[in-house]
Amino acid sequence: MDIENDGTLRASRDHFRWESVDLHPYKEDGSAPFKAITRQVLFAEPELGCELRYFEMAAGGYSTLERHEHMHAVMILRGHGQCLLGAEVRAVKPRDLVTIPAWTWHQFRATDDAPLGFLCMVNRERDKPQLPTEEERAALADNPVVAAFLSGG
Amino acid sequence: MDIENDGTLRASRDHFRWESVDLHPYKEDGSAPFKAITRQVLFAEPELGCELRYFEMAAGGYSTLERHEHMHAVMILRGHGQCLLGAEVRAVKPRDLVTIPAWTWHQFRATDDAPLGFLCMVNRERDKPQLPTEEERAALADNPVVAAFLSGG
Repeated sequence: MDIENDGTLRASRDHFRWESVDLHPYKEDGSAPFKAITRQVLFAEPELGCELRYFEMAAGGYSTLERHEHMHAVMILRGHGQCLLGAEVRAVKPRDLVTIPAWTWHQFRATDDAPLGFLCMVNRERDKPQLPTEEERAALADNPVVAAFLSGG
Repeated sequence: MDIENDGTLRASRDHFRWESVDLHPYKEDGSAPFKAITRQVLFAEPELGCELRYFEMAAGGYSTLERHEHMHAVMILRGHGQCLLGAEVRAVKPRDLVTIPAWTWHQFRATDDAPLGFLCMVNRERDKPQLPTEEERAALADNPVVAAFLSGG
């Protein structure tokens, strides 16, 4: 039907954009380490109890290495990459489901040849992420697989 | 990495299935009208505040025509079809976002040639759906576009 949009249907656009959904920076510049990543908020109505966001890294991009009390529920939508989850590095592909438990260090990295995009569902009431201290980062990097991940290898 | 699965990563499988995710009937048979539709619960951890489910209709299938106080937040993942939203019939395609406000009559129908699958996010605390009375269904069908949708046309 050719009717005016009242906000109940927001059409998908090319390149993983959506009608009436703004493209935001991932975080404020300088607030934490990250590279080439954007954020779109798809649903944030208070009555849902949670929010659904879409994050996308350009080829070679990565999210911040961080942890927090709140849980993340992730579905990969686009591309391939790796995810650090505690002491494990896992390859991810479209539609894979990733559960990031409370207080688990985590970071996503896109492969060098294509963007990596994922949905991330979170409780609307949540704590702020913590960044690792130098000591915590060094402890993670004791594992050579994690060290290679952290250095982008 | 080749490590044992601890539940933090559940890999996507062919045909919109996932590792460690059961395929359920949409609803109990005979509890409401619907056709050829399945349900998979992707995330339901209490600390998220909400749940993420994946529903899929076979070609020609449809969900129940119903309404309730709780809101639905939907992203189409697969296929094409139509969605009734109150007095409107909208065509849907992959990655379209559909917000179903409180107390809005709604129903999804797959096209006759392919499955229609979508993610549906809901508050974990929610009321039970209401089915339309004969009078309410007749009032909806006063609109010829809605009548054609309801009759599968």
